[in-house]
Amino acid sequence: MTLRFGLLGAGRIGKVHAKAITSTPGAALVAVADAFPAAAQAIADQYGCAIRTIEAIEADRDIDAVVICTPTDTHADLIERFARAGKAIFCEKPIDLSLARVKACLKVVRETKATLMVGFNRRFDPHFAAVRAEIDKGSIGAVEMVTITSRDPGAPPVDYIARSGGIFRDMTIHDFDMARFLLGEEVVEVSAMASVLVDPAIGKAGDYDSVQVMLKTASGKQAMISNSRRATYGYDQRIEVHGSNGLVSAENQRPVSIEIASSLGYTRPPLHDFFMTRYTDAYAAEIAAFIAAAAGKAPVSPSGEDGLAALALAEAALKSVAEGRTVKLAEVTG
Amino acid sequence: MTLRFGLLGAGRIGKVHAKAITSTPGAALVAVADAFPAAAQAIADQYGCAIRTIEAIEADRDIDAVVICTPTDTHADLIERFARAGKAIFCEKPIDLSLARVKACLKVVRETKATLMVGFNRRFDPHFAAVRAEIDKGSIGAVEMVTITSRDPGAPPVDYIARSGGIFRDMTIHDFDMARFLLGEEVVEVSAMASVLVDPAIGKAGDYDSVQVMLKTASGKQAMISNSRRATYGYDQRIEVHGSNGLVSAENQRPVSIEIASSLGYTRPPLHDFFMTRYTDAYAAEIAAFIAAAAGKAPVSPSGEDGLAALALAEAALKSVAEGRTVKLAEVTG
Amino acid sequence: MTLRFGLLGAGRIGKVHAKAITSTPGAALVAVADAFPAAAQAIADQYGCAIRTIEAIEADRDIDAVVICTPTDTHADLIERFARAGKAIFCEKPIDLSLARVKACLKVVRETKATLMVGFNRRFDPHFAAVRAEIDKGSIGAVEMVTITSRDPGAPPVDYIARSGGIFRDMTIHDFDMARFLLGEEVVEVSAMASVLVDPAIGKAGDYDSVQVMLKTASGKQAMISNSRRATYGYDQRIEVHGSNGLVSAENQRPVSIEIASSLGYTRPPLHDFFMTRYTDAYAAEIAAFIAAAAGKAPVSPSGEDGLAALALAEAALKSVAEGRTVKLAEVTG
Amino acid sequence: MTLRFGLLGAGRIGKVHAKAITSTPGAALVAVADAFPAAAQAIADQYGCAIRTIEAIEADRDIDAVVICTPTDTHADLIERFARAGKAIFCEKPIDLSLARVKACLKVVRETKATLMVGFNRRFDPHFAAVRAEIDKGSIGAVEMVTITSRDPGAPPVDYIARSGGIFRDMTIHDFDMARFLLGEEVVEVSAMASVLVDPAIGKAGDYDSVQVMLKTASGKQAMISNSRRATYGYDQRIEVHGSNGLVSAENQRPVSIEIASSLGYTRPPLHDFFMTRYTDAYAAEIAAFIAAAAGKAPVSPSGEDGLAALALAEAALKSVAEGRTVKLAEVTG
Repeated sequence: MTLRFGLLGAGRIGKVHAKAITSTPGAALVAVADAFPAAAQAIADQYGCAIRTIEAIEADRDIDAVVICTPTDTHADLIERFARAGKAIFCEKPIDLSLARVKACLKVVRETKATLMVGFNRRFDPHFAAVRAEIDKGSIGAVEMVTITSRDPGAPPVDYIARSGGIFRDMTIHDFDMARFLLGEEVVEVSAMASVLVDPAIGKAGDYDSVQVMLKTASGKQAMISNSRRATYGYDQRIEVHGSNGLVSAENQRPVSIEIASSLGYTRPPLHDFFMTRYTDAYAAEIAAFIAAAAGKAPVSPSGEDGLAALALAEAALKSVAEGRTVKLAEVTG
Repeated sequence: MTLRFGLLGAGRIGKVHAKAITSTPGAALVAVADAFPAAAQAIADQYGCAIRTIEAIEADRDIDAVVICTPTDTHADLIERFARAGKAIFCEKPIDLSLARVKACLKVVRETKATLMVGFNRRFDPHFAAVRAEIDKGSIGAVEMVTITSRDPGAPPVDYIARSGGIFRDMTIHDFDMARFLLGEEVVEVSAMASVLVDPAIGKAGDYDSVQVMLKTASGKQAMISNSRRATYGYDQRIEVHGSNGLVSAENQRPVSIEIASSLGYTRPPLHDFFMTRYTDAYAAEIAAFIAAAAGKAPVSPSGEDGLAALALAEAALKSVAEGRTVKLAEVTG
Repeated sequence: MTLRFGLLGAGRIGKVHAKAITSTPGAALVAVADAFPAAAQAIADQYGCAIRTIEAIEADRDIDAVVICTPTDTHADLIERFARAGKAIFCEKPIDLSLARVKACLKVVRETKATLMVGFNRRFDPHFAAVRAEIDKGSIGAVEMVTITSRDPGAPPVDYIARSGGIFRDMTIHDFDMARFLLGEEVVEVSAMASVLVDPAIGKAGDYDSVQVMLKTASGKQAMISNSRRATYGYDQRIEVHGSNGLVSAENQRPVSIEIASSLGYTRPPLHDFFMTRYTDAYAAEIAAFIAAAAGKAPVSPSGEDGLAALALAEAALKSVAEGRTVKLAEVTG
Repeated sequence: MTLRFGLLGAGRIGKVHAKAITSTPGAALVAVADAFPAAAQAIADQYGCAIRTIEAIEADRDIDAVVICTPTDTHADLIERFARAGKAIFCEKPIDLSLARVKACLKVVRETKATLMVGFNRRFDPHFAAVRAEIDKGSIGAVEMVTITSRDPGAPPVDYIARSGGIFRDMTIHDFDMARFLLGEEVVEVSAMASVLVDPAIGKAGDYDSVQVMLKTASGKQAMISNSRRATYGYDQRIEVHGSNGLVSAENQRPVSIEIASSLGYTRPPLHDFFMTRYTDAYAAEIAAFIAAAAGKAPVSPSGEDGLAALALAEAALKSVAEGRTVKLAEVTG
């Protein structure tokens, strides 16, 4: 059985998913929709799919599932529409920048019993997934402390930042999800610090570019996250998980692994400098997992609730920075 | 312009090339031929190409190029036939186990002005290619000494070994080509040692499973190769090139790069255990290079002459083992 | 000119300093004092020095400098006595567990113009010192974010913990000093989280065994510290400093750097499992720096004020945990 | 019981041993002899030992053992004299450049039952010793193939080279000993290649600067050695031992292990650039082993016979280069 996809949004991340869908057995890209005709046309040309309106995709019998890659402020509405239309839904993170709106949306998902998976692609990175697998195998005993390093090669355009919901909701949200994925227990306390060190324009836009966050669970497990919008040496993505019996970690990835030794020392090339090349395998595995979930062969994970939980952590981190104190998660989730 | 391919041989390596062709822009897989109908059918089903006889592919106007993945003893004949038929030819190594037969075959290629590329896939590995690029950039000065480590996870079946031409022609041949690729000057002397340490059955079949080879060029540049049919920790494929100003090396590749630290130490997972997963990127780049060469946009490399040169080195190594002396390459190339 | 030393305290760390003094050119160990005659005797036997009372060392004309390795609660008194006696003073950290007492003690040091150096040995580790040297050379541009990982192989005895002043004053204090050493700007805000994950007995003693801390300077530079009293794989001591142009880091050290590859993967031995073997070079360099400082050839660093500053950060971290909020350093330093 | 040493030769390596002796428990440096009074004086001043003639040291009752660090052409004579004088003897490699002379000397050693240890310091490097320990523990199964990389940061003065006996006797001899140490079975065949790539003056002096050697034992175990008198990145000293169940290797050592990441990539500092800093620990362990052997608490290893065996391999390698063939060791050992 082939899962027939409609792709909503043909931008940068839409292209990533189009490629993943078309190269995954059991998946077919039937149609694409985008407000910009040229973007939709490019996908249609490359993969031989139809161009349709969102309304048509909603109504079409030959579409089983949609991948939502439209701007963030349309996500929740589209999820509700396609949940009611009986389609399986894969939605890029975040569901919405407002916790209340996300909750309302998830209510519709529950009522319609729709399949909703949220795009925390890093869970599907083979290296990070292997870290989790080692935890599950008991290789390090009980998880105690998690350290997540996540540094972007460079900041996005300031106008993107202005409507991104800020660094915690836009960038750290991946790390919040990763922390939850690795801690195996819900976070109850959040403390954060934030600065503008990279670009004053980011500060003028009301955001930060350098942040660190501490998390704690009810039983005392801890996590720390370090984020920057700048890393000259490439896309810095590392995790380490300390447990009662040891440590499991995932190192950075580079496209070419050679080393040059000279009187200057031993030099290896920089890391991947772009999330798409860094997470190529993760995007493919993510779509495969969605197909399995839509077919009922695997649980839906990460779910809409995972999306909500990560957003709540972002909210708590913002509050912690604003009020200079450790915030209990219950304060923001009400 | 799309290069239209006929695939000759639908076995293990044939499948690798079928996948590479169908996922490369500018290439189309039109037809497949194989003595075993089921093998051809599997490729035809997966990629939607026709099943034809070799004769038909030879005659067909809608085929521009062939990929020869049939048994070794058919390579030279097929190259001659398709050279005469005016098709561009990609042939898996070796062209033949006999130097004389290879020479005769290359004569036909020259006379027909056919495009012939030989399948030394490792030149296209992104890490090894990057080593060569650093040499070309002058990063290490003049090349002086090359070290190549190439150890297989396990030995092939003994019946394969019996008709493989022996370890030098079957396995070391890749390293001979790599040495030539990196030295940048023709080898003139060869000395080799060989043992049976892995499996006595290999010795009974008249072959060795553990060999080391030293090479020297006219100006005194040197290379050493270490080969074994056994490596419990995976597919060990390393090169280092020492030059007057430094060293450039390529490390081993593993599918998952995590590390577990415990009271037992720090452990990373084994390497790739199979040439197909190790060299996935290399096979894709190889076909892309062939397409460029067939279109006249790039030189044909590695050429039939490269195939001949590597085979001559294998011949010289065998002679060195048999006679217990350093063999001048001119002795075998006549 | 040789600096003639009196050693106060012949315990574990006293022995380390005795060895460092006796193997450093320009230093001589003249006398040792300890409340336990056997401990003093062991040092006297090994290095051929005299056994004297503290009073005698205070009065002796043949003693230029003292190394204070007695229990923490005697440090401040001894510093004041030997400052008044005109001796150069090297004192193990901390000066005292009370900020007020440290301040009073440093007042005496200032009034007597005594040379006082505090034993933050890690500044003298060749690897950490090299990290600082790269910062000073401008290799990474302006410092932005520091990450310090410091995990002990195992917890000290609970009765030690009970009188240690707690993990922040006993263990994290080294990391607070390291953060100051690397940030190059004073910390103004501290936030900490703390748990008991390793041993409930530590919790019963009123302390924590797993903590994480975030620091921020006035200009927004940040540091994070991760501490645990447990690390099965050895003494985990890493730093990384992110700057506007790059990252400089120091890796862990192991006594033996071999690697075993097998079907289980690639394994390197555990790290050093003891601070004395891990920091052998640091202790030697530390005493050499003290000798240079006592001779007026180098500034006194780390100074008594550095000791005070690190203790203040510990105080602030404790307050942060107790009150669940970010603490301004000014609150504790008054 | 303290072993009382006379040091013969106060040059560069003599100083290394003086330091090792004086910092090793159970050893005392009583006297030094050197043809250059200033050299002897420097040692005497630094360590407070007497200056004596070789004759006096030979006769003195207060000398138990000698360390021979004089020029190579005096080694065999001195060994014989001190063997007859009943002293335990540690002699720097090589015993002599002539196999016949070494054999005659060892005859005297056997007849006098003298303790003679030869200075193959690398066996005592903690990393290489750990490799051997893993072999002994069975961690890699049966040893099959050994690879030794040994590259000097720079060539010695040409006048040194002229009287050194050539690269095989002077430099590769360490690797021959290491190969024997690791193979655990005597070598029976040797094949070598040699070039002048670094400095034509070395060629004019009748020597080579770039060599590679293959060794084979009776059961077919193999070793390969790669040597160069040039390595811009430091003192390159690596070994890897492949066995039936895995691989054990020792990596290079660097004085400072930091890493700088920038847009240029990830750079670690060069290696040690001098054998004395690279092998500091090895020299100390070597003297400790000699003291234990002289006290009868441990076997004498490496012995005079080990010195002879390594020299025979050098002889065979030279013959292999000269005659362009694989040389049986029996040909040179007669």
